[in-house]
Amino acid sequence: MASTLFTHCTIFPCASADCIQDAFLLTSGNVIAAIGPMTEVPAPNNARVIDASGKLVMPGLINGHNHSAMTLFRGMADDLELTAWLHDHIFPAEARLISPEMVYWCTRLAAAEMILSGTTCVADAYFFSGMSAQALSDCGMRAVIGHGIVDFPVPSVPDPAKNVETVAAFISQWLDRDPLITPAVFAHAPYTCSPATLRKAQKLAADTGVRFFLHIAETRNEMATIIDPHGTSPIRHLAALGLLDRNTVCVHGVWLDDEDLDLVAQSGATVVTCPQSNLKLASGVARVKEMVSRGIMVGLGTDGCASNNSLDMFREMDMLAKIQKIACQDATVLPAQIALHCATLGNAGLLKLSKVGKLEAGWQADLILLDLKHPHLTPFYNPDLLVYAASGADVETVMVNGRLVMENRQILSFDLEETKTRVNELACKARTRH
Amino acid sequence: MASTLFTHCTIFPCASADCIQDAFLLTSGNVIAAIGPMTEVPAPNNARVIDASGKLVMPGLINGHNHSAMTLFRGMADDLELTAWLHDHIFPAEARLISPEMVYWCTRLAAAEMILSGTTCVADAYFFSGMSAQALSDCGMRAVIGHGIVDFPVPSVPDPAKNVETVAAFISQWLDRDPLITPAVFAHAPYTCSPATLRKAQKLAADTGVRFFLHIAETRNEMATIIDPHGTSPIRHLAALGLLDRNTVCVHGVWLDDEDLDLVAQSGATVVTCPQSNLKLASGVARVKEMVSRGIMVGLGTDGCASNNSLDMFREMDMLAKIQKIACQDATVLPAQIALHCATLGNAGLLKLSKVGKLEAGWQADLILLDLKHPHLTPFYNPDLLVYAASGADVETVMVNGRLVMENRQILSFDLEETKTRVNELACKARTRH
Repeated sequence: MASTLFTHCTIFPCASADCIQDAFLLTSGNVIAAIGPMTEVPAPNNARVIDASGKLVMPGLINGHNHSAMTLFRGMADDLELTAWLHDHIFPAEARLISPEMVYWCTRLAAAEMILSGTTCVADAYFFSGMSAQALSDCGMRAVIGHGIVDFPVPSVPDPAKNVETVAAFISQWLDRDPLITPAVFAHAPYTCSPATLRKAQKLAADTGVRFFLHIAETRNEMATIIDPHGTSPIRHLAALGLLDRNTVCVHGVWLDDEDLDLVAQSGATVVTCPQSNLKLASGVARVKEMVSRGIMVGLGTDGCASNNSLDMFREMDMLAKIQKIACQDATVLPAQIALHCATLGNAGLLKLSKVGKLEAGWQADLILLDLKHPHLTPFYNPDLLVYAASGADVETVMVNGRLVMENRQILSFDLEETKTRVNELACKARTRH
Repeated sequence: MASTLFTHCTIFPCASADCIQDAFLLTSGNVIAAIGPMTEVPAPNNARVIDASGKLVMPGLINGHNHSAMTLFRGMADDLELTAWLHDHIFPAEARLISPEMVYWCTRLAAAEMILSGTTCVADAYFFSGMSAQALSDCGMRAVIGHGIVDFPVPSVPDPAKNVETVAAFISQWLDRDPLITPAVFAHAPYTCSPATLRKAQKLAADTGVRFFLHIAETRNEMATIIDPHGTSPIRHLAALGLLDRNTVCVHGVWLDDEDLDLVAQSGATVVTCPQSNLKLASGVARVKEMVSRGIMVGLGTDGCASNNSLDMFREMDMLAKIQKIACQDATVLPAQIALHCATLGNAGLLKLSKVGKLEAGWQADLILLDLKHPHLTPFYNPDLLVYAASGADVETVMVNGRLVMENRQILSFDLEETKTRVNELACKARTRH
């Protein structure tokens, strides 16, 4: 069983803990075997020893919402309102360019960007999700992958009548295939799925024991576009349909009033907030402070990089903390520690990942090493700096499930050059109509 | 005269221009001698040739407002309201720790961070500014350096009665000392300077032909704290004192009502916005859209890194664009191009820098090279990605005034290790009371 011993490092075990100075961390197979001060370092035996002097070891970040394959569309259409962006640019580009091959290679490119910025796990949501799953599996990332469902024809499901059964096939294919990959259901939104479709999708998730994701209350005018509304808000619409429960992951949740927040809290549903995307599309600012104070489990995601345009979760944490402060007109709101929690244990809980998001003996060895010697991290008084000054580019080495997938900023788990070449070929096609 | 020839690069000459593919750029001494397609590349003669294939060459970014030496205080006190942050943490820390040595070394550390993130010029504002000037001069950066003025004793000026004359001495010392360094006057704020002090400070700036900077309208309740108010808003206070004119650089300008905006526009005064600092301290969102539409010259700054906590101008551009969109509830507001303009030509104009902020023959050779091969910059459809996806860490090589100060991410113009060692020694002192 492969084993790695990191020595002389600073360990930041989780958002709520202090750093341990001059420490060691030993992995065994896919788990953390021991953590402690260097005075108690074990003999390496067969472990590979990595001198991590001057490095911070922390849990790998988890991206709570991404459409990974959309790397192809990043920067194609900026500075546009959501509806125009979606209907005039993204949906047409997708209709023209999506293919299994596109999803595979563009998801690999996203995996490279995520790994290089310290993300070890992603909740993906797209189409041709078997290809996303294959790509993330091939790249060695941990992932929860929701296959998309909409009530109109898409390249992956030309006949919308078969949308739920396509996802059922994806789930049965991936449910026990790779311990790092967990399939899920992703009903795109109540404005692209009828109540009947939403009910079928949720039943599929419940029957197969996987998570049920959907975009909800992203924009102020969403209610007007919902198919067959049952309530006075997107959340009340969901609740009226009986679709709001512990298994429901509400993505965005920007426009929730007090009654909506209470409904979410009572139901045990969770929320993934995507602040940068919500800002760039001028969708709004989610009421994260109120969610946290009601005990709603909150995660953090980048959204697809066509609307962000970065998959760097360090930037996302920074934005989450800052936008909540300004929205609440209170600089003490959403301190750095909460942002770090959302991006690690918060997301892990929401994705039902077991023993992920914290560094502790017996937990999964999903961890990242940051170089603390950069000028912008000097002096390093406390881990708040990870939110307010660090960026993904400070991540030097990444381990997922006990395997080094990046070391000294070199991707080890797959061929990055081949990936870029294939995506650039697809980008040439994309440009011809651009 | 030293000359450098960059070949096979993509050149992004300025915010409003398209990229030139497969181009060359030739410098001669401190200026750009020629730019053109590789088909017209000149013989290198004695120029050093740098193969810049796969690289983007763009103007160096300008940081419109920084308190460089505050690197020592970064991360010391986060998630606090401005008044508590300033009076309970920053002012006491400054009173205890500021010294000429501290300002020198901590400014050098800031220079390292700025250069490594593609900033070639900074508008600095602090105390012991002769040391800031010396540090930035030693580091090879271009800088406009405002010496601080307040009406209470500070380590650099124990007798506040001598605050303006101290700055006069600084200006005469640095006015013609280094072509890269321009002194200036920085009156801290109307709540720390009496009208008499503000008038003397402004007269000094006018008499010596240097810029007059001041923090203004940063927080909503600033008017209540202004010494001897003359108006109903900080801007009207300034205007009533006759201090609002073409030479006035208003830093922050968050809480400007329509009348204030009209006054600023009519006076020809300029505004530097610092969105990340304004968000982190929950100060507010400056009305940049309205400033731009009134023709006010707007620049962009990071503010000191104790309230940001980053000096990365790429992050600042991203935040400027996104926060304006959400504040205006319009995703088309402040497109990437305007953010790029603010951080280059906008700041250059506001700082009265001649031929800086654009790549064109005859202009100063202040430029940066970014590696476009990173996954997060692939595909690269257009320069909007510089705002929404790039970060300072993508900058590979930096030239200021024709001199390479960083190459392949190695600082060439000074000893970074010595700088970090000295700052870390000071941080140990800082920690003893923390």
